Amino acid sequence: MSSQITIALDVMGGDLGVNMTIPGAARALKTHSDIKFLLFGDEAIIRPVLSRYPDLKTHAEIIHTDQFICNTEKPSTALRKGRHSSMRLAINAVSEGKADCIVSAGNTGALMAMAKMVLKCLPDIRRPAIASVMPTKDGRVVMLDLGANLFCDSEILVQFSLLGAVYSKVVEGKETPTVGLLNIGSEDVKGHEELRTAAAVLERVSFSGKYYGFVEGDDIPMGTTDVVVTDGFTGNIALKTAEGVAKLSSLYMKDAFKSSPLAMLGGLLAKPALIRMKKKVDPRFYNGGMFLGLDGVCVKSHGGTDEIGFSNALQVAYDLIENKFNDQVAKELENVMGQESFFTADTTEE
Amino acid sequence: MSSQITIALDVMGGDLGVNMTIPGAARALKTHSDIKFLLFGDEAIIRPVLSRYPDLKTHAEIIHTDQFICNTEKPSTALRKGRHSSMRLAINAVSEGKADCIVSAGNTGALMAMAKMVLKCLPDIRRPAIASVMPTKDGRVVMLDLGANLFCDSEILVQFSLLGAVYSKVVEGKETPTVGLLNIGSEDVKGHEELRTAAAVLERVSFSGKYYGFVEGDDIPMGTTDVVVTDGFTGNIALKTAEGVAKLSSLYMKDAFKSSPLAMLGGLLAKPALIRMKKKVDPRFYNGGMFLGLDGVCVKSHGGTDEIGFSNALQVAYDLIENKFNDQVAKELENVMGQESFFTADTTEE
Repeated sequence: MSSQITIALDVMGGDLGVNMTIPGAARALKTHSDIKFLLFGDEAIIRPVLSRYPDLKTHAEIIHTDQFICNTEKPSTALRKGRHSSMRLAINAVSEGKADCIVSAGNTGALMAMAKMVLKCLPDIRRPAIASVMPTKDGRVVMLDLGANLFCDSEILVQFSLLGAVYSKVVEGKETPTVGLLNIGSEDVKGHEELRTAAAVLERVSFSGKYYGFVEGDDIPMGTTDVVVTDGFTGNIALKTAEGVAKLSSLYMKDAFKSSPLAMLGGLLAKPALIRMKKKVDPRFYNGGMFLGLDGVCVKSHGGTDEIGFSNALQVAYDLIENKFNDQVAKELENVMGQESFFTADTTEE
Repeated sequence: MSSQITIALDVMGGDLGVNMTIPGAARALKTHSDIKFLLFGDEAIIRPVLSRYPDLKTHAEIIHTDQFICNTEKPSTALRKGRHSSMRLAINAVSEGKADCIVSAGNTGALMAMAKMVLKCLPDIRRPAIASVMPTKDGRVVMLDLGANLFCDSEILVQFSLLGAVYSKVVEGKETPTVGLLNIGSEDVKGHEELRTAAAVLERVSFSGKYYGFVEGDDIPMGTTDVVVTDGFTGNIALKTAEGVAKLSSLYMKDAFKSSPLAMLGGLLAKPALIRMKKKVDPRFYNGGMFLGLDGVCVKSHGGTDEIGFSNALQVAYDLIENKFNDQVAKELENVMGQESFFTADTTEE
């Protein structure tokens, strides 16, 4: 890796495609002039948009392909038939050492399946997780898994706890991040067997973070811990429920300010404060799902985001590379595994 | 059942105990003068509070016991040692035909375990579920299970769908309630096997509601369907995440209105509108977790609520009895089972 960071970009992904990914890349370049972009996609579609961003043009190379993965494509089909797709070629660039990371706003399932197959997991990591950062009362929380694994045994939950703790430490800057396991009660006797076993392991090993205990759904937005670990089914539903309720609150508020002339005036006066508040929870600033645990950096942007949101996903990728996240994970694993063989006998594969 | 409705009240439950349950009962009586209360708890503690509510006094009978279930008590211990507790005696009153329903703000796990043992499930219902109503964009949604069953096989998910549909129809007044199964994607191929099997059954049987398909976390607050069905682990986490995010939104808003003199003035002007909005999502008006599927009506109030919230839990119990919910469920089961033997071979017990 040179001092320059090379990002392989699947420019065809996302609802707005090149009209979002290319402006997003141009925006990221303003913050980090040391990024080089490999733009994977249809040259004829890329060129006219790229020509509007002369700075980006000098930092970008187009790798043409006219194939891309639809959002409705099944992961298995994408694996089989998408070998020449923009997404797949961008992932290949990372495995071939031509890029430091891959960023896509395309089909999540296809991206995960391809990235898993091409990049493989880090040594000793059994499964990659999708992680993301969410706003809390006084800061931010890292949550994983958000949908990569329906079921997670205790060993996988422990590994996700380590990944989350390292992320919170090296990227979020928390000195000793607290880690909570998402459960339906904070008492030790509650929840699945897998959770109780994972809790027992996290209590006895020493790692980058500090095991806090079981946390419940409301602990996520309250920021009780720096990291929340759960299986991909529960995590995905918790994340989307949170997004939905945040949207509902904002709809209710809009209705309230429209409900009377006095309320409208009040809303007008409070507008700057409300905009500041909205910015604090703007999903675009939390965009960028990290595929943690892969031997290569892969970041997934929301498909429906805009150039600001997409540039944030690029920022997330940049942070992971700049902070050598994967090297830190390798060290963490060595440290934890050196202490004690904490890996349980449970290695059920899906 | 006489035209009078008799509610067995575990007056000792809840954070505020008799200071919340008795005022709550008095409040419910103002709306429904046909309620008779059986107050289970410590007579010496009840009498002084009850004396402040002369109307309630004439509609109430005290059944003394000095035992009650702590919030920290394990369900198994409560079952074994709580035979003379206020909670247990109140449940017994329902099974003995002395009361039409039991309402408690005490330990959820203990209440569920005791109610299950004493009241048993309705014929053909394998498991009871905890259900509750939540605010949505344009109305209300019924969600179940919220924590009674960690795992749910497809047959249980189908039964919960029927319970939810009947509730939505007879209590919420929806003509043909739509039912969604909570999943991590709306595509047919997504999620656990149990969900896909349940979906297949719901697609082919005709019941009180209409099967909508898979729904995701954000569909709950958006009100995509009238009923959302899930396992108790996921449901509990989704519910608590929603509660936490709603609380966070309200904290952010308070901060915004305190952030500048202009914003404060704006907040003041919009106050009546904001109070109306707050009322719309006030958790007290959604208080009352229904234990559906039991052969007897059992409603759980939030422990931390106040008399207004508790009176709402009593209202929920009242609605279930008045609308003969359990009779309707029996009819629904007869109808659905008459059509086709849709019960799968999967009858794994916990």
